[in-house]
Amino acid sequence: MQANIERLQQRMNVLGVRFRPHVKTSKCLPVVRAQLEAGAQGITVSTLKEAEQFFAEGIVDILYAVGIVPGKLAKVLALRRQGCQLKIITDNPESAAAIVAFGKEHGEVLEVWIEVDCDGHRSGIKPDDSSQLLAVARILTAGRMLLGGVMTHAGSSYELDTPEALESMAEQERSGCVRAAQHVRAAGIACPGVSVGSTPTALTARHLDEVTEVRAGVYVFFDLVMHNVGVCRMDEVALSVLTTVIGHQIDKGWAIVDAGWMAMSRDRGTAKQKRDFGFGQVCALDGTVMPGYVMSGANQEHGIVSREGTADSGIASRFPVGTLLRIIPNHACATGAQFPEYCALTDDGSLEVWERFYGW
Amino acid sequence: MQANIERLQQRMNVLGVRFRPHVKTSKCLPVVRAQLEAGAQGITVSTLKEAEQFFAEGIVDILYAVGIVPGKLAKVLALRRQGCQLKIITDNPESAAAIVAFGKEHGEVLEVWIEVDCDGHRSGIKPDDSSQLLAVARILTAGRMLLGGVMTHAGSSYELDTPEALESMAEQERSGCVRAAQHVRAAGIACPGVSVGSTPTALTARHLDEVTEVRAGVYVFFDLVMHNVGVCRMDEVALSVLTTVIGHQIDKGWAIVDAGWMAMSRDRGTAKQKRDFGFGQVCALDGTVMPGYVMSGANQEHGIVSREGTADSGIASRFPVGTLLRIIPNHACATGAQFPEYCALTDDGSLEVWERFYGW
Repeated sequence: MQANIERLQQRMNVLGVRFRPHVKTSKCLPVVRAQLEAGAQGITVSTLKEAEQFFAEGIVDILYAVGIVPGKLAKVLALRRQGCQLKIITDNPESAAAIVAFGKEHGEVLEVWIEVDCDGHRSGIKPDDSSQLLAVARILTAGRMLLGGVMTHAGSSYELDTPEALESMAEQERSGCVRAAQHVRAAGIACPGVSVGSTPTALTARHLDEVTEVRAGVYVFFDLVMHNVGVCRMDEVALSVLTTVIGHQIDKGWAIVDAGWMAMSRDRGTAKQKRDFGFGQVCALDGTVMPGYVMSGANQEHGIVSREGTADSGIASRFPVGTLLRIIPNHACATGAQFPEYCALTDDGSLEVWERFYGW
Repeated sequence: MQANIERLQQRMNVLGVRFRPHVKTSKCLPVVRAQLEAGAQGITVSTLKEAEQFFAEGIVDILYAVGIVPGKLAKVLALRRQGCQLKIITDNPESAAAIVAFGKEHGEVLEVWIEVDCDGHRSGIKPDDSSQLLAVARILTAGRMLLGGVMTHAGSSYELDTPEALESMAEQERSGCVRAAQHVRAAGIACPGVSVGSTPTALTARHLDEVTEVRAGVYVFFDLVMHNVGVCRMDEVALSVLTTVIGHQIDKGWAIVDAGWMAMSRDRGTAKQKRDFGFGQVCALDGTVMPGYVMSGANQEHGIVSREGTADSGIASRFPVGTLLRIIPNHACATGAQFPEYCALTDDGSLEVWERFYGW
C-alpha cells in the first residue's frame, strides 16, 4: 500500500499537479493519513458521511464529488460553519439555482465546481456544451457563490486494457476538462480549478498541462480489475481476504472456503475483462499467487475454490480442511466495504487493526 | 415484512414442522424478534458473530450453518459455556475428528449436525453416500459428541422459476435429507433431526413428511430474484433503497440518482433470470412500481435510472432533480448488508430506526 501511494504521488509531483485522493476506497484514517503524509493535498469523498468522519479527524480540504441536491445542503452548511473547506459539485441549472437560494438564505458563499462529462459514462456537462456550462456558471456567480472550477472523472478508463487506449483516454479526460474551463473563462468568468482523474488515467497520462489537480482512489490498494486494465502487477495488489478451507467436493475438484460473496462482495468486475478471475485469485497464506486457482463461485458465506479448466482431482490434499488461503478481490472498493476493519501488515511484520466506516 | 413472516410461519404450522429462520438476511434484532413472536423456534446463523450478537440478546437455540473448522471451536465453546445451545455442522471426517478431539480436550459434548448435499450446489455429503455419512456419524458418536441430525439447503432452487420445478426441488431436498437420516439410523445411530430449507422450497413443498425443521432467510423481505423465481409478488417485497435524483443525461434518457452499487450492492442476480432488472426496479416514493424503469447502471455512489427499450426523452420532467425514488433490490441479503440500519415503517406510519450489524 505504501509503495502504491508513493508511486502515484511521485508521478503527480513530476507532472506538476496537486493530488487529492478519493477516500471512498478505504474509508480508513490510517490509509488517508499515509496518503496525506506522502504529499496529497486535500481529499475527495463520495458521501457526506466521509466528509464528516475525516473532517472530525482534522482534514479540512474536502471535495464532495457527487452532484449535490437541495436536501443535502444543510449538512454541507453545518460542515462549513465548523471550518470544513467543503466543495460541492453540480452539472445542472436547477441545482445551481437551489445552491444560490440556499446560500443567500443562510448568508454563506458556497464553493461549487461544475461537473464535466468527458467520456459519456455518467454525470456531467459535455466539454463543449458551452451554453450549459455558462448557464450553470452564470447562475452561481450571479448568485455570489464561488465557482471553484471544473472537474471530471474518466470512469470509462476501467473498460480499457492497452497502454495506447489508456493514454488516449487520459488525454481525452484532460483536454475535455481544460476546454470546459476555457469556455467558462472565455465568458469572463473566473474558473481557477481543473480537476481530473481516475486510477487508470492518473497512471498513464503523458502530461497534465493546464490541469490543477488529480483525483484517484483505488490505486491505494489496486485489485484484479486494475490488473486487467494493465496499471498494476498482481504483486502490487495490497488487499486480500483471508479464508479457511472448510470442506471439499472431490468429484468436482472443489475446495469450499468460509469466505463467500459477503466477504468478497458481489463484484464480478473481471467477468467482462480479458481475464475472468471469478470472485478472486487464490493465493497461499504468504501471498504467493497460485496460478489457475480462483474462487469460481460464491454463496453468502461459502466460496468455491477450483482450478480453471480441468478439475483438480487432488484438491483435498492440495488444500486440506483448515488450510488458510488469501483471495485477491476483483474490486478493492467493494470488497473493503464488506469489512469493519483492515488487518494491516506493518513494516516490522506485526499486524494492526485499522477501523473503517460505512453507511451514509 | 410482517405479512411475509406470517405467511411462511403459517405454512410451516400447517406442514407440521418447526421453523428456524436464517437471520443472515436481516442481522437485525427487531426483525428476528418478529420472527420468533410469530412462532419460529430458534435461529440459523451464517457467522459466529451472528450467534454472539443474537445470543447476547437472549436467543439461545442457534444453528451455525457453515461447516466448522478447528480454528472456530474456541468461540463455539465460549458460547456454549455461557448457555448458548449452539449447534455446529460438518460434512467430512477430518472436521468430525477435530471436533471430537476438541470436545474431549475441553470436556464438552458438542452438538453436531451432518451437512447433506441435496442438489450439488455447494457443501455436503450426497444423500446416498452412506459410507461417508456413516464415517462422519461414527467418528462423532464414538467420540461421545451429540449427533443432532442431518441438514441440507436446496440453494439451486434460486435458479428455477416454475411451480412444477420448485415443487420437484422441494421434494428432492426433503427426500434426500430424509434418506440421509435413514442411512445413519439403519446403522443403529440415533439421528433425530432432519432440517431442510430455502425460501423457494419452503414456500412450495407439498409436504414435509419426516422433516423436523425448516430454515429460510430471504422470505422475510423478498426481492426481485425471488419475484423472478415466482414465490412473491412485487408488492410483497418489503425492502427498498430510498434515493434522490441528482441530475440527467437527457440525450440518453438517463436520470442520475445518488444510490449506486454501494447502496444496492453489486448483486446482479436477475441478470441470468427471465427478467433482468439491472440493479433494481424503480418505484415512486409511495412504493408504486413504475413499470419499465430500472436502475440500468451503477457506480459507487451514482445510479443510472432509465426506461427499458427506448430512451425516455422526457426523463428530466418525469424525474426532476430532487425527486425521491425507491429502488427494489435484486437481492435483499446483499443490499441490506450495505446499510448500518433499516428505516422501518410501522403500523401507524411512523418510522423506526432498526440497527443491523455486519462483519465477522
